[in-house]
Amino acid sequence: MGDEVILLNFWLSPYGMRVRIALEEKGIKYENREEDFSNKSPLLLQMNPVHKKIPVLIHNGKPICESLIAVEYIDEVWNDQSPLLPSDPYQRAQARFWANYVDTEIYKLAMRFWTTEGVEREAAGEEFLGCLKLLEKQLGDEPYFGGNNFGLVDVALVPLFCYFYTFSLYGNFIKEAQYPKIIAWAKRCIQKESVSKSFPEEHKVKEHVSQKRNKG
Amino acid sequence: MGDEVILLNFWLSPYGMRVRIALEEKGIKYENREEDFSNKSPLLLQMNPVHKKIPVLIHNGKPICESLIAVEYIDEVWNDQSPLLPSDPYQRAQARFWANYVDTEIYKLAMRFWTTEGVEREAAGEEFLGCLKLLEKQLGDEPYFGGNNFGLVDVALVPLFCYFYTFSLYGNFIKEAQYPKIIAWAKRCIQKESVSKSFPEEHKVKEHVSQKRNKG
Repeated sequence: MGDEVILLNFWLSPYGMRVRIALEEKGIKYENREEDFSNKSPLLLQMNPVHKKIPVLIHNGKPICESLIAVEYIDEVWNDQSPLLPSDPYQRAQARFWANYVDTEIYKLAMRFWTTEGVEREAAGEEFLGCLKLLEKQLGDEPYFGGNNFGLVDVALVPLFCYFYTFSLYGNFIKEAQYPKIIAWAKRCIQKESVSKSFPEEHKVKEHVSQKRNKG
Repeated sequence: MGDEVILLNFWLSPYGMRVRIALEEKGIKYENREEDFSNKSPLLLQMNPVHKKIPVLIHNGKPICESLIAVEYIDEVWNDQSPLLPSDPYQRAQARFWANYVDTEIYKLAMRFWTTEGVEREAAGEEFLGCLKLLEKQLGDEPYFGGNNFGLVDVALVPLFCYFYTFSLYGNFIKEAQYPKIIAWAKRCIQKESVSKSFPEEHKVKEHVSQKRNKG
């Protein structure tokens, strides 16, 4: 009997994309179920009663909440191919540190950037770019944050980065001349089928964003 | 040649206590070095250049930052005794979920409680107690959050909880009648040498808090 894998998701969520990318990396068949935030499904409320948020990975009826925890879970359960975390405990701690940095710094700044205006938005943008500089330094000359392997930090960062860069939702916000390494990294990631398959369609994202702007 | 283990710490930090408890659980000899926040050591700045914060675990010269990441690292490196995470991937994901909950909800609310006044402080206190109720339900009738084993979630929660309960810094804030299970849990934890040894002396904490209050 095969595994039953369901992902409660929302197509635009970079957190959901992380889980999709990890599942694709492992070649796991799964059913993606879209949630409507204005009318959350009974299954979502049952599977994530604490936060009531997507993404929720449901593996043989049991829920795993929080995107990075789900990515680690996927890596541990389907451990026969495409490791997302290194086997060495020290390297693993480093990967967790940077994935946590992406979560607590980069994503929060992006959220501030998206939800504020004027001076506050400008400050969030500046700070975001400062964090990218640090990540660029951390990446160095490696192909991925996971060294030669696409790994946890890559999975954590790539969905958000691509909104800013690949889809250019904010024009020329991340300047190629200033972030050559991280932009080469993003292009490398996008070439992976696991990543490109997990991305929403560009025109849908742009339509959604322009509708939101017009409403706002 | 033995391992060299150094902990850059501040005696009052519940985050630092987590790392101490994990080291004590494993019976690892380590050197605790106190940091002065007004004059951070060159070693701290070198070992945690991103956040410049304690605790930093330094194992044979290499730094591990972020308390829960350090606890997982300790569990993975010294894996021959007192496991802090379960071996089953699903149970491990659950432990990480609740440890993350303690970090992102409980600790943040405690921080708001400590750093605000009046209505805002009251609201943080109420919300904090609501989260405790949820944790009480999660604990159920098990001796520890890790079931029969003292584990990651226990390590994450016990330092903060004991400021509120064991040391009664805020009077009768957590009422025994309302949280019987979690208070029995706290008493159980305190009886463990790994926990009691990692706690600061009660009179020092109370002196520190009353000095702060008088200054404030």
